[in-house]
Amino acid sequence: MNWVGINDLIKSALAEDIGHGDMTTDSLVEPDIEASGVFLAKARGILAGIEVSQAVFAMLDPQVSFMIHKQDGETINPGDILARVEGRAASLLTGERLALNFVQRLSGIATKTRHYVDLIGDAPVRLVDTRKTTPGLRVLEKYAVTVGGGHNHRFGLYDGVMIKDNHILVAGGITPAVEKVRAKVPHTLKIEVEVDTLEQLQEALGAGADIILLDNMDLPTLKKAVKMTRGRALLEASGGINEKTIAAVARTGVDIISSGALTHSAVSLDISFDIV
Amino acid sequence: MNWVGINDLIKSALAEDIGHGDMTTDSLVEPDIEASGVFLAKARGILAGIEVSQAVFAMLDPQVSFMIHKQDGETINPGDILARVEGRAASLLTGERLALNFVQRLSGIATKTRHYVDLIGDAPVRLVDTRKTTPGLRVLEKYAVTVGGGHNHRFGLYDGVMIKDNHILVAGGITPAVEKVRAKVPHTLKIEVEVDTLEQLQEALGAGADIILLDNMDLPTLKKAVKMTRGRALLEASGGINEKTIAAVARTGVDIISSGALTHSAVSLDISFDIV
Amino acid sequence: MNWVGINDLIKSALAEDIGHGDMTTDSLVEPDIEASGVFLAKARGILAGIEVSQAVFAMLDPQVSFMIHKQDGETINPGDILARVEGRAASLLTGERLALNFVQRLSGIATKTRHYVDLIGDAPVRLVDTRKTTPGLRVLEKYAVTVGGGHNHRFGLYDGVMIKDNHILVAGGITPAVEKVRAKVPHTLKIEVEVDTLEQLQEALGAGADIILLDNMDLPTLKKAVKMTRGRALLEASGGINEKTIAAVARTGVDIISSGALTHSAVSLDISFDIV
Amino acid sequence: MNWVGINDLIKSALAEDIGHGDMTTDSLVEPDIEASGVFLAKARGILAGIEVSQAVFAMLDPQVSFMIHKQDGETINPGDILARVEGRAASLLTGERLALNFVQRLSGIATKTRHYVDLIGDAPVRLVDTRKTTPGLRVLEKYAVTVGGGHNHRFGLYDGVMIKDNHILVAGGITPAVEKVRAKVPHTLKIEVEVDTLEQLQEALGAGADIILLDNMDLPTLKKAVKMTRGRALLEASGGINEKTIAAVARTGVDIISSGALTHSAVSLDISFDIV
Amino acid sequence: MNWVGINDLIKSALAEDIGHGDMTTDSLVEPDIEASGVFLAKARGILAGIEVSQAVFAMLDPQVSFMIHKQDGETINPGDILARVEGRAASLLTGERLALNFVQRLSGIATKTRHYVDLIGDAPVRLVDTRKTTPGLRVLEKYAVTVGGGHNHRFGLYDGVMIKDNHILVAGGITPAVEKVRAKVPHTLKIEVEVDTLEQLQEALGAGADIILLDNMDLPTLKKAVKMTRGRALLEASGGINEKTIAAVARTGVDIISSGALTHSAVSLDISFDIV
Amino acid sequence: MNWVGINDLIKSALAEDIGHGDMTTDSLVEPDIEASGVFLAKARGILAGIEVSQAVFAMLDPQVSFMIHKQDGETINPGDILARVEGRAASLLTGERLALNFVQRLSGIATKTRHYVDLIGDAPVRLVDTRKTTPGLRVLEKYAVTVGGGHNHRFGLYDGVMIKDNHILVAGGITPAVEKVRAKVPHTLKIEVEVDTLEQLQEALGAGADIILLDNMDLPTLKKAVKMTRGRALLEASGGINEKTIAAVARTGVDIISSGALTHSAVSLDISFDIV
Repeated sequence: MNWVGINDLIKSALAEDIGHGDMTTDSLVEPDIEASGVFLAKARGILAGIEVSQAVFAMLDPQVSFMIHKQDGETINPGDILARVEGRAASLLTGERLALNFVQRLSGIATKTRHYVDLIGDAPVRLVDTRKTTPGLRVLEKYAVTVGGGHNHRFGLYDGVMIKDNHILVAGGITPAVEKVRAKVPHTLKIEVEVDTLEQLQEALGAGADIILLDNMDLPTLKKAVKMTRGRALLEASGGINEKTIAAVARTGVDIISSGALTHSAVSLDISFDIV
Repeated sequence: MNWVGINDLIKSALAEDIGHGDMTTDSLVEPDIEASGVFLAKARGILAGIEVSQAVFAMLDPQVSFMIHKQDGETINPGDILARVEGRAASLLTGERLALNFVQRLSGIATKTRHYVDLIGDAPVRLVDTRKTTPGLRVLEKYAVTVGGGHNHRFGLYDGVMIKDNHILVAGGITPAVEKVRAKVPHTLKIEVEVDTLEQLQEALGAGADIILLDNMDLPTLKKAVKMTRGRALLEASGGINEKTIAAVARTGVDIISSGALTHSAVSLDISFDIV
Repeated sequence: MNWVGINDLIKSALAEDIGHGDMTTDSLVEPDIEASGVFLAKARGILAGIEVSQAVFAMLDPQVSFMIHKQDGETINPGDILARVEGRAASLLTGERLALNFVQRLSGIATKTRHYVDLIGDAPVRLVDTRKTTPGLRVLEKYAVTVGGGHNHRFGLYDGVMIKDNHILVAGGITPAVEKVRAKVPHTLKIEVEVDTLEQLQEALGAGADIILLDNMDLPTLKKAVKMTRGRALLEASGGINEKTIAAVARTGVDIISSGALTHSAVSLDISFDIV
Repeated sequence: MNWVGINDLIKSALAEDIGHGDMTTDSLVEPDIEASGVFLAKARGILAGIEVSQAVFAMLDPQVSFMIHKQDGETINPGDILARVEGRAASLLTGERLALNFVQRLSGIATKTRHYVDLIGDAPVRLVDTRKTTPGLRVLEKYAVTVGGGHNHRFGLYDGVMIKDNHILVAGGITPAVEKVRAKVPHTLKIEVEVDTLEQLQEALGAGADIILLDNMDLPTLKKAVKMTRGRALLEASGGINEKTIAAVARTGVDIISSGALTHSAVSLDISFDIV
Repeated sequence: MNWVGINDLIKSALAEDIGHGDMTTDSLVEPDIEASGVFLAKARGILAGIEVSQAVFAMLDPQVSFMIHKQDGETINPGDILARVEGRAASLLTGERLALNFVQRLSGIATKTRHYVDLIGDAPVRLVDTRKTTPGLRVLEKYAVTVGGGHNHRFGLYDGVMIKDNHILVAGGITPAVEKVRAKVPHTLKIEVEVDTLEQLQEALGAGADIILLDNMDLPTLKKAVKMTRGRALLEASGGINEKTIAAVARTGVDIISSGALTHSAVSLDISFDIV
Repeated sequence: MNWVGINDLIKSALAEDIGHGDMTTDSLVEPDIEASGVFLAKARGILAGIEVSQAVFAMLDPQVSFMIHKQDGETINPGDILARVEGRAASLLTGERLALNFVQRLSGIATKTRHYVDLIGDAPVRLVDTRKTTPGLRVLEKYAVTVGGGHNHRFGLYDGVMIKDNHILVAGGITPAVEKVRAKVPHTLKIEVEVDTLEQLQEALGAGADIILLDNMDLPTLKKAVKMTRGRALLEASGGINEKTIAAVARTGVDIISSGALTHSAVSLDISFDIV
């Protein structure tokens, strides 16, 4: 991760929450009062973002000491102490909510991802995320997916080629679309084509696509696609992936399963901060 | 809403997604190709953020025309056209994902809020949000709560006083805490105190708190709290609010119910963008 | 105070003054020459902002040591040493003007505020500032008011409600204006209404305003207002507050006196920086 | 003036005042209500910054029309209409205070400057400002000085050389200081030296200083300095310049009088905004 | 190209050049004087960046009209009019230098690239750039390379994998390095390995590298590498590429030639701006 | 130099190169692996910018230690170690390219400048740069010119007056142009006029110009210009300055020679970074 960018994000988020000052804490807590507190798990899940929480306090008050007890990727259970924080009471009280907002959302994503990964089990399939992330938090949310055992798809429009139905429409077919793109984009990028049917798959293979996204195909069709492809391209199943379907999709032989739900439908994991 | 700030957020989010350029669209779509597309509901819910989606295209390409068919706050059903977009095909393809990411998340929050509001029914209770929002998106997420029929609690640490258990601990009691805060903060802010017990409620009332947050109290206790208070302060029930409990809590007579789940546990509403 | 924001302000102000470099110092003073200097009061007044001056040097050159001799809020007299600075001569010479510009303006505001506070004497009245501050410096200027013994009114349009004559005009009366606002704004904010006459005061009280600003009323009218109100709302006298009038206004029984002059008519307090 | 920079300043100042939203106006005024208002002089003075006020509304709401009735530099009297504004009532109500804060402060500076210029009368002396400006507002405040009939000294440490007593101390004398600076700085900058005595003046002249600042000299000494110099350098009188002294200083024959009071001791000119 | 980012760059560059104002033009040219001017080629080369020059004026003064006569990619000769600009004389005078600085540098890069492309002739080789670009200008410089007929390598460390000698050293060999990277990076990225010898090439092929950079190999070795590889990976020749060597390297059968000189050793193309 | 500004530039440049992360290094190099490396000269030239390279690593990873072996301004030869870097291997691998891009470009400028300075030899002439710099890098590029033994002309439009042919045209002649400017600009700036002929020179001298730029004059004309001027103004020769002409121009007696080529035609000096 690029911490320079993440620290800018934390700075903006602190400004969003504190504004011109913490009315309650600033008027109540003398600067010389020290305190310590703990981050406590209140639900079972996968921890992600504990170092982001640490960075929140580091930016707010470099004197605060933040000791990490559980690492990102560990399974946590209710009652587990995740980290211990010591320093000025005022800093702890002002910073706790933002620190929680980060770690709770990221752990929610990691937990959901781990759940899907577990459902896939031993199938040789890579579970990846999408661009369906919260605006402004993409780097962190994609990090949380990897913490949960998933992998990242492209980070944006700039680091991967994805020729979708609308692109194909505009370009007049899969073959001209692939050719046009290949002639222009850096040779370091693979070319991915989204297809809805096996006919399109055939055309994409002929055009030399490196990766083919099989959009919303049912299980038999996915299996046929795998058979037809014979390893000439990476196959990515997408659409309608959920708890009930993912295991079966994983057994079709596709290489990759992508799921927007990892980020757009994750909910926060319950974690609290208590002064002790 | 303060659109100057929201446009900055959109600009950052566009940079996050586009980076140095849209590799696929830039190499495939000639600048002079025009297209039109529609935002389509794919699930039932409450629309929120359609003007934010409009602003995404306006920033990306001022020539794009964006006609709103459904307003924020309207109930939408699968198949409903929410907005129609016309302009350069390249701009439509580059901007669609971010526009969706905003409107889907905000509609998800509005939909959840409306659900809770409906459960409250005619009870004279105000449903409010919390500070448990996604870092960077608070203004938009709180806007979505109002679209769904909820109200806003304070926006941050700067525009409201909330004396929590940890503050009370540090200040040596509710009474000195309230006095200390009242002596310093602007006279324009009400003072809210969080209490766990009826004894604390009694003390908070005696100290002249304007609002009292009743944290995680069961129904009988909430009712006793209402009786004890006799309108001397606004009562806000918080903790453990969910689909099953909210209606009963609303009937206890409290003035306000606050729920972090409105934002931290909302998931995106399914909306798509199709070139037509 | 939120120092993250203040440090951004200092950074901008340093850029404003130094630009591409300090032509004189950079060409004259070798980097290894050390020096020390003192901030000296040259007039009597109330010190405010000495830590802001400290932060100027800390940003310019973290090696500079800045020892504070007088704290914000102390009365200073000509000849008093306010702080002592040691470090690279070049840093001292480059940073001194900005450090002075901050502490002089803030001390000017604190001094004027203290003067007004002294004139109020024992009357149980809170002296507050307004939004008539220098663009960009509001947080610091409002801090200086508190250093001088005053209190803060709302910090901006976002953290307080003030229904002014123009709002009343547009809303069609005080009562509908208050109702409309109360229905929408967070329950954490008090509602303030500006009135010009006792009839309006009566209407505002009836509408349940929490605070009523009595605009430009003469002393007998202010007294009548206090009598009419009987503690049902906080009364804030505003308009025409100056050295000659403030004591009498304070004795009318109003709760609050607000004065734009604390900030818009304060002048810098004379302080110098001398290399020793 | 560089409007790109000024618009950034206005944007920051709007953010400072509006924050997450104008609680009062947003909840009270429907977006389709139109209104018009006027900026009215309430005191006699010199107008400065009316286009900055215009730019405030232009950034907040490009649909607002702002017609300027009085130009910067004109003398205004109580009751004069300075500008007329038409557009959405909400935009007028939200923007008025910041527009006033700018034009009132800048007009205050222009008014004070004009007063000093009038006191100088026909004497062939240029009145200039200093770096004693409000952090963040230097470009605007220096613009206001020119509106009032004054001139600008250097804008910062980067666009002029000023060898002060502390520099001389460090460099080991005026002559080596001038030589060292002249060897390094761009040939486009004149070299100014601050002197306290006629002996120092003599040395500065010998060293070839282009401009010599005569610091805190009494009238007879200033006259001697003029005589000694015989036009070999520009002479700038500084220190102790006020309403009572400026005319006499102007008659000593110096070329320039610099006054920090133009900016650090100016107070806002009274101007109001009324919805009509 | 992502114009949102480029406009930010232009804004910074205007601030760098104009600072607090254009001393000469602002004091000399009345705002109502109109003028027109032309960009004239003064040397033969390939034009690149004319729309960036256009954007400079658009940001400085939206009223300026900028008519493009030659498009990016066209060969220009001394005396050719590249664009015609009309509008306020002051805007033309203030903006011309920055507009030239952009178009001259970018045209210099395009010209150098075209020269190399011409030297390659019909050989089926793609000429690509590197990360050896001017800090802050990478997107524009890489755009200029494409204008000259070259292609882009990865834009940064984020959108491509390049395992260099130092990485290999740290990872303990090519095979483990490739495996480790492949297990983690998005499946959308190809994996490139830098090799110095044919032995390393063999290992890289065995490890399944998608692209292999042949670093500083002589012609016979390059030919052997091509033979060994038999199309199993893309081969990129790098190091020591210049006017004398490029044609021969192109004929070795490699797929790609990369050259840092396209950007780090390009000089500005001579173009002037004349008021007419 | 103003390091606050330079650090912002470095931060932007790191973001440009690293984006969301260094795909190769992040997936390959464990955080606890330490390494050391050296910056090695691979060509003869003048070093400039080694502290900027140091600052790149300091921003990326404050734990990296960067020991400077050669100072800016020293002549370096192939094989010379310029600096030694120790710390986390990942930080070294991620930061090396940007560190090189800075020091290579700046050393290229310093080397070219030193070459020109050597060609001038003992002639009492100051070699200066122009505004023909890379957008965004002006402060650093002008610093590199001084490292090479040159001097700086004005840094931008804000810190120097240059009346060019186009200004003269608009103002109606040299004399009114000079008068108009002198009446307005700070007295701290010299006034420079660009002339094409000796007649214009005569007029500029009569108007009291402080500096006169002799544009594209041949040697005999330059000599006549020097003779005519007799020290009444600084003379700056400009246009057509290159390796072949500079020595002769320097002997004409002009005071200053300005050359855009120092920056717009400098190429990077070859320097490498090797892990050891």
